[in-house]
Amino acid sequence: MFHVEQKTKSIMDLKSKIREIPDFPTKGISFKDITTLLKDKQAFRFVTDEIVTEFKDKHISKVLGIESRGFIFGGALALELDAGFVPVRKKGKLPAEVISEIYELEYGTDTIEMHSDAISKEDVVLIHDDLLATGGTANAVYNILKRIGVKNIYFSFVCDLEFILTPQKEVIQKFNPHILVKY
Amino acid sequence: MFHVEQKTKSIMDLKSKIREIPDFPTKGISFKDITTLLKDKQAFRFVTDEIVTEFKDKHISKVLGIESRGFIFGGALALELDAGFVPVRKKGKLPAEVISEIYELEYGTDTIEMHSDAISKEDVVLIHDDLLATGGTANAVYNILKRIGVKNIYFSFVCDLEFILTPQKEVIQKFNPHILVKY
Repeated sequence: MFHVEQKTKSIMDLKSKIREIPDFPTKGISFKDITTLLKDKQAFRFVTDEIVTEFKDKHISKVLGIESRGFIFGGALALELDAGFVPVRKKGKLPAEVISEIYELEYGTDTIEMHSDAISKEDVVLIHDDLLATGGTANAVYNILKRIGVKNIYFSFVCDLEFILTPQKEVIQKFNPHILVKY
Repeated sequence: MFHVEQKTKSIMDLKSKIREIPDFPTKGISFKDITTLLKDKQAFRFVTDEIVTEFKDKHISKVLGIESRGFIFGGALALELDAGFVPVRKKGKLPAEVISEIYELEYGTDTIEMHSDAISKEDVVLIHDDLLATGGTANAVYNILKRIGVKNIYFSFVCDLEFILTPQKEVIQKFNPHILVKY
């Protein structure tokens, strides 16, 4: 009976909690809207518990949340994993000295930044975002951590758009990222 | 002895954990940078515990986090208060039907949005942001909740810039917002 309960818990249908919005932000894209999951307290708790269970023995010292939806579970994960929280933000938002990384978009480039004093190379880091799509942002965060010399890096995403394959995403996949919902 | 320990806990010097950055984002402004608090796991836990202690008997059903720094403790608070999480975002970021509120800035206006299906009038709502300055954004969120007909509303901010006084802020002050650090 215990096994049956465990099984029931682990197969909560998260996909049914995520709203799909056709043609947002542009035509042809089916946007995965996690706000319907976030407002459901059981689903919010379930997602957090699943990620915490995966990483609770890894001695995570810093949770890196990627702006801005990565901040939501990121804060909860930092608390539950007894770690500090570090925001990775878009260019110009962080007020002190930053490490920047420029990365390619379909058209043009984008820049992410992290405070220079936020992480040391001895930290055990969990990088969290709600969605893994092209992996461009996550790979840019990874490049910053490599430059600092961080050796222990883990990844967590609520959703993965598996049909998107890029060289940047291949880098992330080598780390066996924790994924809860696959499309 | 028990009382002494309690006292020591409640007077953790949070101000020493917050970095002040002169002339950011513009000349004359001393920016309160909470990233130094966030990365400190004891301080992160302390802030969350203090807010949870304040609101744990209020039957909060939804925590509203204001984009984007309000998402960080907002996620942790939703988890700890056994509530759902609702993001309040800048214009154009939320993909489904929204309720919008336009509010005045020093020069021009800004707009915040919340999904129309995120809150019902029966919800008990905790509005959270890291900083209460002019109260413009918090007041705009309050106006949205009034339009929906929400009756039970609480406010939590990590910091309050007490020297800033505006009519919008007076509205928030009537709700006796929970504040941890005053400037």
